[in-house]
Amino acid sequence: MKAVRLEAVGSISLREIAKPVPGPDDLLVRIEACGVCGTDRHLFHGEFPCRPPVTPGHEFSGIVEEVGTAVSGFAVGDRVTGDPNIACGRCGQCHAGRVNLCSNLTAIGIHRDGGFADYVVMPRKQAFVLPADLKPTHGAFCEPLGCCLHGVDLAEVRPGSSVVVLGGGVIGLLTVQLARLAGATTIILSTRQASRRALARELGATASVDPTATDVIDAITSPAGLMPGGADVVFECAGVCETVEQSMRLARAGGTVVIVGVTPQGMKAEFEPFDLLFRELKVVGSFLNPYTHRRAAELIAAGVIEIDRLISRQVTLEEAPRVIANPPAPGEVKVLVVPAMG
Amino acid sequence: MKAVRLEAVGSISLREIAKPVPGPDDLLVRIEACGVCGTDRHLFHGEFPCRPPVTPGHEFSGIVEEVGTAVSGFAVGDRVTGDPNIACGRCGQCHAGRVNLCSNLTAIGIHRDGGFADYVVMPRKQAFVLPADLKPTHGAFCEPLGCCLHGVDLAEVRPGSSVVVLGGGVIGLLTVQLARLAGATTIILSTRQASRRALARELGATASVDPTATDVIDAITSPAGLMPGGADVVFECAGVCETVEQSMRLARAGGTVVIVGVTPQGMKAEFEPFDLLFRELKVVGSFLNPYTHRRAAELIAAGVIEIDRLISRQVTLEEAPRVIANPPAPGEVKVLVVPAMG
Amino acid sequence: MKAVRLEAVGSISLREIAKPVPGPDDLLVRIEACGVCGTDRHLFHGEFPCRPPVTPGHEFSGIVEEVGTAVSGFAVGDRVTGDPNIACGRCGQCHAGRVNLCSNLTAIGIHRDGGFADYVVMPRKQAFVLPADLKPTHGAFCEPLGCCLHGVDLAEVRPGSSVVVLGGGVIGLLTVQLARLAGATTIILSTRQASRRALARELGATASVDPTATDVIDAITSPAGLMPGGADVVFECAGVCETVEQSMRLARAGGTVVIVGVTPQGMKAEFEPFDLLFRELKVVGSFLNPYTHRRAAELIAAGVIEIDRLISRQVTLEEAPRVIANPPAPGEVKVLVVPAMG
Amino acid sequence: MKAVRLEAVGSISLREIAKPVPGPDDLLVRIEACGVCGTDRHLFHGEFPCRPPVTPGHEFSGIVEEVGTAVSGFAVGDRVTGDPNIACGRCGQCHAGRVNLCSNLTAIGIHRDGGFADYVVMPRKQAFVLPADLKPTHGAFCEPLGCCLHGVDLAEVRPGSSVVVLGGGVIGLLTVQLARLAGATTIILSTRQASRRALARELGATASVDPTATDVIDAITSPAGLMPGGADVVFECAGVCETVEQSMRLARAGGTVVIVGVTPQGMKAEFEPFDLLFRELKVVGSFLNPYTHRRAAELIAAGVIEIDRLISRQVTLEEAPRVIANPPAPGEVKVLVVPAMG
Ligand SMILES: NC(=O)c1ccc[n+]([C@@H]2O[C@H](COP(=O)([O-])OP(=O)(O)OC[C@H]3O[C@@H](n4cnc5c(N)ncnc54)[C@H](OP(=O)(O)O)[C@@H]3O)[C@@H](O)[C@H]2O)c1
Ligand SMILES: NC(=O)c1ccc[n+]([C@@H]2O[C@H](COP(=O)([O-])OP(=O)(O)OC[C@H]3O[C@@H](n4cnc5c(N)ncnc54)[C@H](OP(=O)(O)O)[C@@H]3O)[C@@H](O)[C@H]2O)c1
Ligand SMILES: NC(=O)c1ccc[n+]([C@@H]2O[C@H](COP(=O)([O-])OP(=O)(O)OC[C@H]3O[C@@H](n4cnc5c(N)ncnc54)[C@H](OP(=O)(O)O)[C@@H]3O)[C@@H](O)[C@H]2O)c1
Ligand SMILES: NC(=O)c1ccc[n+]([C@@H]2O[C@H](COP(=O)([O-])OP(=O)(O)OC[C@H]3O[C@@H](n4cnc5c(N)ncnc54)[C@H](OP(=O)(O)O)[C@@H]3O)[C@@H](O)[C@H]2O)c1
Ligand SMILES: [Zn+2]
Ligand SMILES: [Zn+2]
Ligand SMILES: [Zn+2]
Ligand SMILES: [Zn+2]
Repeated sequence: MKAVRLEAVGSISLREIAKPVPGPDDLLVRIEACGVCGTDRHLFHGEFPCRPPVTPGHEFSGIVEEVGTAVSGFAVGDRVTGDPNIACGRCGQCHAGRVNLCSNLTAIGIHRDGGFADYVVMPRKQAFVLPADLKPTHGAFCEPLGCCLHGVDLAEVRPGSSVVVLGGGVIGLLTVQLARLAGATTIILSTRQASRRALARELGATASVDPTATDVIDAITSPAGLMPGGADVVFECAGVCETVEQSMRLARAGGTVVIVGVTPQGMKAEFEPFDLLFRELKVVGSFLNPYTHRRAAELIAAGVIEIDRLISRQVTLEEAPRVIANPPAPGEVKVLVVPAMG
Repeated sequence: MKAVRLEAVGSISLREIAKPVPGPDDLLVRIEACGVCGTDRHLFHGEFPCRPPVTPGHEFSGIVEEVGTAVSGFAVGDRVTGDPNIACGRCGQCHAGRVNLCSNLTAIGIHRDGGFADYVVMPRKQAFVLPADLKPTHGAFCEPLGCCLHGVDLAEVRPGSSVVVLGGGVIGLLTVQLARLAGATTIILSTRQASRRALARELGATASVDPTATDVIDAITSPAGLMPGGADVVFECAGVCETVEQSMRLARAGGTVVIVGVTPQGMKAEFEPFDLLFRELKVVGSFLNPYTHRRAAELIAAGVIEIDRLISRQVTLEEAPRVIANPPAPGEVKVLVVPAMG
Repeated sequence: MKAVRLEAVGSISLREIAKPVPGPDDLLVRIEACGVCGTDRHLFHGEFPCRPPVTPGHEFSGIVEEVGTAVSGFAVGDRVTGDPNIACGRCGQCHAGRVNLCSNLTAIGIHRDGGFADYVVMPRKQAFVLPADLKPTHGAFCEPLGCCLHGVDLAEVRPGSSVVVLGGGVIGLLTVQLARLAGATTIILSTRQASRRALARELGATASVDPTATDVIDAITSPAGLMPGGADVVFECAGVCETVEQSMRLARAGGTVVIVGVTPQGMKAEFEPFDLLFRELKVVGSFLNPYTHRRAAELIAAGVIEIDRLISRQVTLEEAPRVIANPPAPGEVKVLVVPAMG
Repeated sequence: MKAVRLEAVGSISLREIAKPVPGPDDLLVRIEACGVCGTDRHLFHGEFPCRPPVTPGHEFSGIVEEVGTAVSGFAVGDRVTGDPNIACGRCGQCHAGRVNLCSNLTAIGIHRDGGFADYVVMPRKQAFVLPADLKPTHGAFCEPLGCCLHGVDLAEVRPGSSVVVLGGGVIGLLTVQLARLAGATTIILSTRQASRRALARELGATASVDPTATDVIDAITSPAGLMPGGADVVFECAGVCETVEQSMRLARAGGTVVIVGVTPQGMKAEFEPFDLLFRELKVVGSFLNPYTHRRAAELIAAGVIEIDRLISRQVTLEEAPRVIANPPAPGEVKVLVVPAMG
């Protein structure tokens, strides 16, 4: 079969490799779509540790083609989405129920072969059935949606909440949608590209700001601003120092900041402890998708999340290495690798 | 001014009484609309304690006509909704932040004069501004909506939750709407009247059941049912023994039951402790509207709750005593008393 | 090796069976002590489903004698406690993090061979290291303590809480200790046997009541009672109808009831929904030990739980069948089976 | 009567002023003891806004000498502690139940006359009865204990938790005690003064570190450290940049940091967002004592908090201005002003 192989840092190409064979507890899945994520680019540049040679791709879904001998509950032909994050079940974090913090986390597409290929093998406990009539491309969004859902759960967005989302990539745009779904009545997105601001407003943001054109803090929190006093919840989804520092200043007294974006390891950001204390803020990291993949799959299946407008391009496996090795094009939100197009 | 006076159990009529005078911390409000609630009928029949003579009516909103000398933040002409439940601030429950359980709770419309009148006086801390361009009738729904919001908060409805609501009165129909607003993707209403089931489906219920025609438990939780295994959250909003007993059986393992409906004092219901334990249910009472009135007012102001279709009739102060003294007409959801119509 | 075999309902005896062989992910553990629990008696009487022939015993600890080929982190000679409850990791409940509600739960000592034997085999992910210098008998208390810890976590006992515990068996007496450890300043135990009431007071209960001699509700909640108005938290640890019905009446307004005791399947208890609503109670089931076994083991290792006085008798494997087939003797709290004594 | 008067920034002295007269809802209380807090020194130096002339002192207790005409539930001669923080009850934060964030917070001893005087007047809703046989000095600790209790509640310390406390002033030493009371089994205090480290170990800390002698992070979190991997909960109680920055690095993955210490307004601290995200930390401010004063008073009354060893000195009203105008002496934990000593 064909697979995109990361052979070393900086070296990625399409190869013919042996079709994997499912173990007794595994499923063999023919990939329908696999999303390109910033993490894939970080792996290519060596900014995130992995074990080459490996097939990247952790946002995938497809059709079950073979079922391990010990597996029940799945049949050949089922459409499934895979949760790439395999917890060990035996470390202190797993034993405390914090599976996303597992000391031995094995991620499909990072530590073992993933979805930029014709086929992937995954443990059946990582698989979740999707409807037969779902658009094949939609299943690839379960993983990022599950991560956003974890963030929205941690934030406890409720009917009537006010929300600010910083960063209009796919994570920010999914978070806007989930915040609206959770009942937020005012949602502001800050992102630099005008096309994304427009898209966000179509997807549920009630306003947007351009951080290059205005002082975001002032535009939002000042008495004459969009949300005087700040937001109940701020989601940092850009992963840059500037937005991290904005996030705590955009929360209202008593508000919550959820850090979703990945900033470079070692980078420091500043905050004012006096302000955090006197305004009694809560700042939480939201890492991966613990216990949310099934719910994410159900939300996608229910059709309550707009997906199509988040797909900028669909590419073949042949094109995938170049897409991964290069920065996203301006305006691009999500690029999907669709093997069948090849 | 005119006021509906409950003069003793079983005795209610419209009277001319002196227009009340606001104290330094009070507002005098000209009533635009005041909803008739089951509690008003309970007061009339002596099933709920009060101190006659009193003007009932605790679901009211109106226009500020006079402002107490110590009041800031309100102006003559403001449209306001009143939270009728005045906590004492000094009992053990108030000191623990459980204001709805206040040992000295004073409710406007029960322990002091309420909204079935031309005017009401209320402490300014109970008042919340509504938009000048809001339909005058909508403000009367803040109080019941605040009660439902408390229930939905306690239930922690989240994006993707499955919900059952038992009872299709105004409380049930507002709860359906809030559950949808909080992201529930499947919502089933059980109520006997077909017109309410139809309305619920228009307002966000994804299905409905007729408890007189089917076995509710089976229709919902059986493998071929509407929600196999049961619901994440069940709201009991009918206030009868049958629905209380259904509620725990309709929750899925790990699910939550919220009791909102008021059953007669002393009435017993049965449950199976083994089932509650092995399926690890959570059963909570949701009483009144602690800390939710402002959010309820904002949701009404934002227009995200359908109100008009919940208003069955608008009546004058003259008609109010008869409405309160009689059971609701079939099909009736909410009757509003509108003094200006008189 | 020797093992107590439940061969059919009502038939239990000591047999010589083959010493089990650990799989690659397993540990072979020589049993030092295994507690007899009400569930073992229920299995014997057919009141709880299992798959005979099977070796019961789910409260065990011992010494690692062999380590599966794929196991790291354990060495021969380690003292370990086993969490008997093996979740499947692939059902809806497991995927939601509710492992104690797993649809395919496999319990060591119920669905596969347990600890009333010279040896047990268990998956390494179920094992937790205990200190080499811990008393061998103490490890057998990790499982019941983990169940109680789950209950105390659900109850959110905090510094200054008032607590009532109903039922003075081992579960009740561990709960008293955990409540005190969690900062409860008043703790009342209700149980019929005077010896247990005395023991409870030594272990941290600030008072006790005899349910056969006084009206428990009145003695505790009346204005002149031990805890006027009731308790912040009530733990039902007796598993009888009477205490279940008491539990909700013993909670103060705003309080929490945790049902820990197992009542017979199908048995109904009564409650007053009006009271649950107006006093806004929270009633929760606490089932098994999700994510608490490690913490329980650490508490036992830390020596902060009194264990020795909970051990009524230590018996040999030879005596075990008779102990299991008969009701507990008066005054008995926990009987341990200690194979090395045989 | 005598009162310590802050007449302007930098100007404080003992004056004879009129004994205050209680309003209808007030109590007149004869001060038995009032603690000197860092905030009093900040007021003197103009580092915290107040409205001179004012009598400072917000950690007080005493004996009711006169009862307002509308007050019930208090009698002349009662010993009471006062919660100094009066919330307005009508702002957005109060309406959301976040009374400590009240936009119009009026603090006794800051915005109105406090406890460094023979008498104080306070609204009865701020008063809580203490036992007649309590040591008169102990009541002055209810306010700081209530603040620490809020922090410990936010941290959700549970049986078996591991805790680090940074800063061994009275706040740190009360937090050590509350952490132990809440069931923490390992508690490390970091503070510079050896006498405080010794005291902390007597009060429940299981270890202590000297931040001037060792690398705190390494000493605690390294594999050979006191708490390898870090703590479940870190309390920052020193209020300096160094400890704020340490706090997030001392928490284990999945841990919680509670900021209690007040750092200078405008001072910035650094953190690593990557670390907060990948280790999914929770960082919360804990401000004042919302809904905890009564519980604090009950804990003091129950005698479960060691108070006497926290009292370094008792001084007269005459000495108070000098104590407030000067930094604390080395080794000093809490200085109490005791008018009756004068
Ligand atoms: N926590 C988790 O579990 C998790 C899971 C998945 C992804 N992530 C992380 O989440 C972040 C977002 O992911 P993504 O896929 O949406 O990536 P992305 O496309 O890189 O989105 C981030 C967007 O932030 C915007 N941005 C950059 N600087 C900004 C600024 N100063 N103010 C406002 N917006 C700014 C950019 O859009 P404009 O050009 O329009 O400004 C950028 O495209 C990444 O850091 C990713 O690694 C975290
Ligand atoms: N907790 C609180 O804070 C709070 C606040 C306000 C109101 N309440 C209580 O909430 C309850 C609902 O209030 P509401 O104003 O909506 O009153 P309502 O109009 O009386 O609504 C209850 C509805 O339940 C339905 N019902 C009756 N028996 C049923 C059954 N066996 N199965 C299913 N549905 C059944 C009836 O509609 P059909 O004829 O269509 O069956 C009835 O109209 C009342 O008990 C009220 O006192 C509580
Ligand atoms: N939820 C879980 O995960 C879990 C885990 C383990 C055990 N359990 C259950 O927890 C319960 C307690 O377990 P255990 O091992 O402690 O069993 P146990 O020894 O049977 O304890 C229950 C005790 O309750 C007392 N009791 C009986 N009737 C009472 C009454 N009317 N009022 C007050 N006390 C009464 C009895 O002691 P006196 O003779 O002194 O009255 C009895 O010994 C059992 O039902 C068990 O199945 C649940
Ligand atoms: N959040 C709230 O509601 C609230 C309420 C009351 C007080 N506070 C604040 O809480 C903080 C503590 O109050 P307090 O009354 O206990 O004041 P404190 O006596 O000033 O205590 C702080 C102690 O921290 C220690 N410290 C200083 N630098 C340190 C370092 N680098 N590492 C470790 N310890 C260090 C000092 O003791 P050594 O000399 O022994 O190092 C100092 O005495 C203050 O900032 C206060 O304003 C907050
Ligand atoms: Zn793990
Ligand atoms: Zn009250
Ligand atoms: Zn499972
Ligand atoms: Zn306020």
